[in-house]
Amino acid sequence: MSQDAPSIFTQIINGQLPCHKVYEDEHVIAFLDIQPLTRGHTLVVPKEPAPSFDQLSTESASALGGALPAICRGVMKATGAIAYNLIQNNGHEAGMSVAHVHIHIIPRFPESTHSFLWEYGTINHEEASSLAESIRELLD
Amino acid sequence: MSQDAPSIFTQIINGQLPCHKVYEDEHVIAFLDIQPLTRGHTLVVPKEPAPSFDQLSTESASALGGALPAICRGVMKATGAIAYNLIQNNGHEAGMSVAHVHIHIIPRFPESTHSFLWEYGTINHEEASSLAESIRELLD
Repeated sequence: MSQDAPSIFTQIINGQLPCHKVYEDEHVIAFLDIQPLTRGHTLVVPKEPAPSFDQLSTESASALGGALPAICRGVMKATGAIAYNLIQNNGHEAGMSVAHVHIHIIPRFPESTHSFLWEYGTINHEEASSLAESIRELLD
Repeated sequence: MSQDAPSIFTQIINGQLPCHKVYEDEHVIAFLDIQPLTRGHTLVVPKEPAPSFDQLSTESASALGGALPAICRGVMKATGAIAYNLIQNNGHEAGMSVAHVHIHIIPRFPESTHSFLWEYGTINHEEASSLAESIRELLD
């Protein structure tokens, strides 16, 4: 598939591919992941076909954020999950498989075994102060 | 600390604790994580002290979403990361350590080793159709 071909999510948005839809508004669609990590694993997708979150318009990103709490409530109520993770990957090096922004809602149950291998570091405050300043200056 | 005591993030928002701030607006603050997984690991936090995303107001959730693209761009530019993950945990069973919504921006570099252990399942379409209907009905 060329980079310009519509993503699988755009095809779902356009009705060319089926999905188990749980939510839709002007800017956002949500449906069950067909490769679920756990029961109720849901994808929340902006209709704008941005390949990564940093390339999403403010309008789409606001709509995406605003739609999330109600979708999370629905997924939690319907599945009876005890907790959940929201995960959104950008770039294939970070595990992004479809280059169209999508947020995973991953419910956790008492028997869930998925885990994240995180090795926490310790901040170097001098370097962090300089880095934070650099980020602030580079915000547009 | 009692459940009613202000979270460490509320104390940062109120200026009672220091942080390496990278962004702030009326509804949102972002600063470097002091236990960084990778260089530039940033926390994006709504000022509203909701303990999980499903309990966040639409106003705060929209502001949080809308602020994210520019913060992601700043973090990517300042660190030179090749990719990044957004992660937001809800409930201590899902790895939430501070019960005040916070989104992790975790930059990835060629030498990064953090990973997620995901065991994908296969969807049962009959069950999924019923579950999606249930979620749709439970959206408020």
